[in-house]
Order: sequence, then C-alpha cells, then structure tokens
Amino acid sequence: MFESALLPQKMDKKTFKELEPKLREALLGAQLPVIENQPFSTLLLVDGLDGAGKGEAVARLYGWMDARHLICNAYGEPMDEARLRPPLWRYWRDLPARGDTAIVFGSWYQSVLRDWIFDRIDEDAFEKALARILRFEEMLANEDVLILKFWFVLPRQAQEERLKEIETKNAARHVLADWAALKNHEKASEAGERLIQETSKGYAPWFVIPSEDPEYRDAALAEAVAGAMKRKLEDGKPRTLAAPPVIGGVKRQTAVDTIDLSARLEKNDYEELKDKYQKKLSDLSDLKSMSKTGVVLVFQGNDAAGKGGAIRRVIQPLDPRIYKVYPISAPSDEEKARPYLWRFWRRVPPRGHFAFFDRSWYERVLVERVEGFAGHEDWLRAYNEINEFEQELTDFGFIVCKFWLAISEKEQLRRFKAREDTSYKQHKITDDDWRNRLKWDQYAVAAGDMIDRTSTPHAPWTPVSSENKRHARIEVLKTICARLEEKL
Amino acid sequence: MFESALLPQKMDKKTFKELEPKLREALLGAQLPVIENQPFSTLLLVDGLDGAGKGEAVARLYGWMDARHLICNAYGEPMDEARLRPPLWRYWRDLPARGDTAIVFGSWYQSVLRDWIFDRIDEDAFEKALARILRFEEMLANEDVLILKFWFVLPRQAQEERLKEIETKNAARHVLADWAALKNHEKASEAGERLIQETSKGYAPWFVIPSEDPEYRDAALAEAVAGAMKRKLEDGKPRTLAAPPVIGGVKRQTAVDTIDLSARLEKNDYEELKDKYQKKLSDLSDLKSMSKTGVVLVFQGNDAAGKGGAIRRVIQPLDPRIYKVYPISAPSDEEKARPYLWRFWRRVPPRGHFAFFDRSWYERVLVERVEGFAGHEDWLRAYNEINEFEQELTDFGFIVCKFWLAISEKEQLRRFKAREDTSYKQHKITDDDWRNRLKWDQYAVAAGDMIDRTSTPHAPWTPVSSENKRHARIEVLKTICARLEEKL
Repeated sequence: MFESALLPQKMDKKTFKELEPKLREALLGAQLPVIENQPFSTLLLVDGLDGAGKGEAVARLYGWMDARHLICNAYGEPMDEARLRPPLWRYWRDLPARGDTAIVFGSWYQSVLRDWIFDRIDEDAFEKALARILRFEEMLANEDVLILKFWFVLPRQAQEERLKEIETKNAARHVLADWAALKNHEKASEAGERLIQETSKGYAPWFVIPSEDPEYRDAALAEAVAGAMKRKLEDGKPRTLAAPPVIGGVKRQTAVDTIDLSARLEKNDYEELKDKYQKKLSDLSDLKSMSKTGVVLVFQGNDAAGKGGAIRRVIQPLDPRIYKVYPISAPSDEEKARPYLWRFWRRVPPRGHFAFFDRSWYERVLVERVEGFAGHEDWLRAYNEINEFEQELTDFGFIVCKFWLAISEKEQLRRFKAREDTSYKQHKITDDDWRNRLKWDQYAVAAGDMIDRTSTPHAPWTPVSSENKRHARIEVLKTICARLEEKL
Repeated sequence: MFESALLPQKMDKKTFKELEPKLREALLGAQLPVIENQPFSTLLLVDGLDGAGKGEAVARLYGWMDARHLICNAYGEPMDEARLRPPLWRYWRDLPARGDTAIVFGSWYQSVLRDWIFDRIDEDAFEKALARILRFEEMLANEDVLILKFWFVLPRQAQEERLKEIETKNAARHVLADWAALKNHEKASEAGERLIQETSKGYAPWFVIPSEDPEYRDAALAEAVAGAMKRKLEDGKPRTLAAPPVIGGVKRQTAVDTIDLSARLEKNDYEELKDKYQKKLSDLSDLKSMSKTGVVLVFQGNDAAGKGGAIRRVIQPLDPRIYKVYPISAPSDEEKARPYLWRFWRRVPPRGHFAFFDRSWYERVLVERVEGFAGHEDWLRAYNEINEFEQELTDFGFIVCKFWLAISEKEQLRRFKAREDTSYKQHKITDDDWRNRLKWDQYAVAAGDMIDRTSTPHAPWTPVSSENKRHARIEVLKTICARLEEKL
C-alpha cells in the first residue's frame, strides 16, 4: 500500500526554493478566507513513523501560514485532568473555533494503533475501534470541522539513519530517538496501511507523506493542506488523495514507474516453464480442496500489454467447465441502471470455479477517473468500496489475484503499429487506444494510486513487466500456482 | 427504545377507509416519477418480529402501488447457487434497476441478528458486522439506491395471539406459526433496538412500525414509504424518523403521553422518604469506589415541571466540592464556534464527581428541532451522536441518569400563573414559556421520539410524573440511589 510513498521521492533544494513562495501563497490564499469568514475549523492530524520529521514539517508549515490562527496540540500519555475523564475529552477540550487550525500530534488513533501493534486487541476489537473513530470524525465533519490526516512514511533504512541523527544532534531537546520504534517498523507500517485503507473517507481523508527527502515531504504536506482547504472552501468537500501527482514540476514516482522492464525469457526456457506451471495448475485445480474456494483473477495493464495472451496461457490446462473469461467493455443498459459493482458481483464464480476478468472493476479508478466518466468523489470512494468487495470474496475463502501488466511507451507504439500492419490483429487497435496513449502520464498516476490504495494483504497486486510477453506469462502462471498452493 | 411503538397505536376502520385513497395517491405520486425518470431504485427492507403481519402489510402495499415496478424478494437459508458464493451475492443478484422498487424479506441483517440472538457472536463481532453492513449500505446509497428499513414491533401478548391465529387459519400457507420466535421475544426486541440505534442513518433510515393494529400498521408503512420517496425525489435525501407523528388525523401515542400523572405523595411521607434517600445518597457518595466513577445527571421536562427543585433536593446531602450544577441556556460565542457537543464535553466531570445538567444536549432534539434552530438532518443525526457521546461516558465507567419530568397542560398553566403572581418567582416566567406552551403537541412528539431513540441500556431515560412535585423529587432521589448502588 505504501508502494509509491516508499519510493525515493526527491526534490532538489533549488526546485524547492523556487516553489516556496508559491506554497506560501497557496496556503495563505486558503487560510485567510477561512480566518475571515469562519466557515469551518481545521484539524491536521500528524501521525506516522517516528523519525520521519513530523515536527520539522509542521515547523515549516508554521512559517508559511498565519501562525496566530494555528494551534499545536501534542498529546502523550494523558495526565491529571484528562486521566479522570473519558479518553476523547482532551481532544474535545482543545477543539479549535471556526476559523482556526489545530495541528494534532498524538491523535485519537494513537491508542488503538499502539494496542494493535503490541497485539493487545484482536481483529474484531480493532475494527470496532476504527468504526467508532469514524463515527466521531463524521460527526465533527457534519459540524463544520475539516479533518485532514497525514501519515508520514519512511523506508526502514532511512528511519534508522534519522534516529541516529536525532540521537547525536538533538539530545537536549524533547525529540528523543526512540529506538524501540525501529523494532516495530514493520508492524507500524502495516498498521498505517490498515488505518488508511479503512478510515480514509471523503469527510476525513488520509494523505501519505513520503518523508525521506525533507523538501519533498514539506512541499507535499503544504500542497495537500492548501489544496484540501481550498476545495472545502469551494464546495464544502475536501476530496483528495495521497500526495498530489505533481508538486512544483516534480512528478511523484508511483509503483508502476519502477517496474523493471528489462526482464526477458528465451523461447526454450519459456516452453519448459510454461509446461511445468501449466501442469502444476492443472493438478492444483483437480484437488478436492478446490471445491472449497473460488478463484477471481483480475488482469489490468497498459493497452497492448498482452492481457488476453496471458489469460489464454492460464486457461489452457484448465477444464473449460470450471472457468469463465469475462472481457469487460462498456456496461449494458441493465448494468448502467444499477450500482457499478453489480456487473461484477453477477459474475462472481461459485466455489470450485475460476473467473478471469480481462479488465475489471478497476476501470472505475483508471479510465473512468482519467476520462472523467466518474466524478472525483465517485472514483475516490471506489478504492474503499473495491477493497470491501474483495474482502467479501476472500472472507468467504476465495482467492483474488490481481495483475498489472506493464510495458514501456516505446514498446506500446511498436505493438500498436504491428497490430495495424497485421490483418488479423487490426480489430485489436482502435482510435481509443491512440487517444489513451496521449494520456500516458495520467494513466500512470491513476495506476500507481490504484496499486497503493488497493493492494491489501488479502488481495495484493502483482505488478509484472510485460515488455517481454514470455516473461509476463510465466510470472502470471507462477503467481497463480503459488497463491493456489498456499490456499489449497 | 420501542417505548412508543409498543403503545396501543390504533386506527379505526372508518378512519382507515377514508385515509386509503390518500395513501394510494401519495404512494403513486411518489412512485410514478421514479418509474418515469429513473433517478433511483428503492429497497424496502422488511424485518422485525415474527407474527407482526409483515406479509399482510406488504400485500396491502402491492395493492396500492404500481405492482409492475415492485419486486418481492424473500430470502431464507441460502440455497444452491447462493451457498457457493459470498453471502452478499444473492442480494446483489436481485438488486432492482433504477425506477424499480424491491421489497426485501430476510435482508442482510438476518444472519447477524440471528447470531447475536443465539449468542454465537460477541459484542465486538456484532459491532464489526454492523459497521460492515453500514459501509455496504452507504455505497448503495451513493450509487442511487434508496434504502428504507422497517422494523415491525409487537408487544409480547399480541405476538402470542397472532401466532395462535396464524396456526389456526393459515396452516396450509407458507406462513407458519414460529413458536420459537415467542421464546426469543425479549432478545429479538433488544436486538432490534441495537440495530436501530446503531444503523439508522440519513442514507438508510430505520422506521419502527407498531404492528398491533393492522390498519395503523399498514397506514404507517405506506405513509413512511411515500414520504421518504417524495423527499428523496425533492432533494436527494430520505431524511425521516420512525412512524410519522400524525397519520390521517390519528396522533401517534408517545412515551410521554402515557406517564401516569395521578401519583401523589403526602407531606409527611415525603419528608420521611426524602431524609431516607438523602442519607443514603450521602453515604453512597462517600464510598471509596466513588472515585472510580463519575455521575452525569440530565434533567429535562415540560416548562415549570420543577427541574430546579428536584436538583436542589439531590445536591442537599452532597459535599459541594464534588458536584457542579449547569443551567443550560443559549450557547456562548465560543460555544457557537464549535460542534454543539463541545459545551457539554467541556463540562464532563472528573472521576469522583457529579455534574447536574438543568437542560442539556437534548435541547438539540427538543427546542432546536421544534423551533427549527437545527435543520432536519442535523437534529436527526443528533440521536446517534448523543448515544455515542453517552457511550463514551459509560464505557469509561461513568453513570448517566436522565430524567423527563412531566406535567399536564393544565398544571403547567396553573404554575405559570402562580409564577406571575409571586414576586420572587416572576423571573422564572418569560414570553418564551408562553410561546412554547402553544406548541405543546409538537414538543410532546419531540420528547417521545427522544425517549424512543436515546433510551439505551447504558443510559436509560426515567420518565417521572411531576404533577405532584413531592412525588417527582422522591422518584429522582430513589432512582439515583439505585443507579449508584448498582454501580458502586
């Protein structure tokens, strides 16, 4: 889920210097009308990994905004008065008035996160706690409180370096290197994923802030705050997602940008591996335990990446009575008259069966997002809805495999041309394909966000280089066999 | 919570006959534009106690609406196809197209209700299941599905009679008398309360349908369906609450209408009992275990019912260092700049202390509702918000006592006049009091809904007749002592 946030997002100091006045202008441009007209108050929740530089980032924000209407509230263990009252009391006590902005360190997520990281609560209690937090936030949002939640992330290595640095430089300050935090790096990161997948709502969105590079981090924070306040002023809704795709000309790296496209497989090796995994898949599908599960397979990817070809290699060894392939194009009239997930629910296979989706419900956050067929809020809520949908499947014992088949822009051009030149492939290339190609960057950002937001423990994405189709087909077969083996 | 629904709501056959054409007109008036313009589809969830006549009520609805666009889907144990797929699948499969209305017997609440009634799941799992259902319903609502949920209730005695009747008359039909249902009357009623308190949302409201009298029941159902569809057509929101206050001229009986106002207490008895309970309260407040709890006391009631006098009798035996009395009038500027619950959270006492609220957060659903200071949606969501607020208190170990002090319209007039005639009481009577008095019925409905919706197991309402002040004061003292004794 933090796939892209953990990539080395960088902003050089020069770019940052040039950007700084623009960020200030954007922040003040949003804050001043809020101070003047007091349409809402703002809570900025600052959470995430220790050592990510949350304090530094907020300090910079202070320098850029009107500090007279910024309050910083930091909560640790409750003391005195607060310990004698229900846990939410101290957050209520410090709620800012309309017009003001409060920065909240150690928010109401703190105790539930800690309980979860240290295994003090079980899954049901964790979900219940999150549901109650959401009801609380929903109520605040209904009462004119803008809630923006920031999760600062850092790769393990960088966290270690940061903690060392803090130890040497800041020993006298209140920021102490918390080495225990490093031990919990994995669990804390995982907890963050859960939080963000389950509690990012239109009325209280989470933003993941990549924090390895301080300039990028602070610019991302400022851009997100200014953007959300501005949108809230305009139409009452913050509506926003992760870090913005481009900040000061710096494009955010996403999970799809870093797929290694150099992998190749020679014909002989390919035939051998294909036989091996097809045999394995056939054996697995014959197991008696297969009658207890169902398999849902999603194929997405760049146009001409070879989704159909990959699917064909998977179905070859399967008994045709136990699978169905669904190519997904425009919805029918019946489908249009119902919620968008209806056409996928109706195709959910029974136990013992496979369903292959050549394109899928993910079009909601790809083509429908990029082409504007779905409104901003509609595709934004789709991430959660899709996660819930897949959870219904996996909770019932189904396996959900999702593949992103990636090719380079250049390779796509080559394949498009080849299609035009080959009579029996001409039907596979349309004007739409050429049009989509012009929006390559937008589709890349959408695909990156999709992988970030919907790669869940129960239904992970598998990004696959399809620059070499043989390589892609074997990766797909191998992954499916592994997932089935694990389950059956 | 079903206080008023279990009251004998009656509609005589003549009134019903006169009303019938109007109900049909209202239903068709809402349904026809939906059929024609297809802005949304409608799901009517029919749940509640066995023997309440859900089938009969729906049959009548069929006769009144355009049956070509009504589908009835009844779900029992999943069969065949459905058993091989995730539980939600069959509900998705049968989702109506926009323009159509589906009546759902045996909805997605069925299995969680059953698990809860038969103690197969714990509290956390129950709450988690409800939270997931809400996310599902929210998604449908965002996708143009109007979800109206009906809970049919029946007093135990009436349920027994109905089951007998079914057994004699309908033995050959698919409606079988389910005697097991009677055994679970209490648990099923309690489960219904929980459902309604936790899953009644603006986008998917519950309606409680009093079902003892078939005419009243069917009129209430029709009125609710027509009203909600109409409001959804008008502004996209169903926004509605329980059964309507008045149907065809028949005023709904509420919990406050049935308080027995005849209770009296003579002076001597009063003094004796007062001394007894004040002594007891004093002793209880000195207990060491008092330092582990806090006590929050809410006093609401008709104007001039004697809230202040009752509070004075409770504080007399208490050490002034451990209680505070808060008379609640208009909010301050600071309070107006924040969510409405802020001014009550800031007054939450620490452990070991008492807080008396002479009027309270309940003004949100009383005066603010009746006078229009809060919008329809705002006071509607307040029921849930208030329940959550009180749950935060009781989860922390606090005691929440809530009193509704009731007097008759006539007695109120007598007291108003007496206040005007007594110099040191003149400050207690204002123009507002006289104005509110003109809206007696509206306040009664608001108070009845309040008690229905916010009388929770953790924070129940105690309705008290205050026609005789001595009686009221002793009831209040006695109740507080009992609640403290139970806890300490």
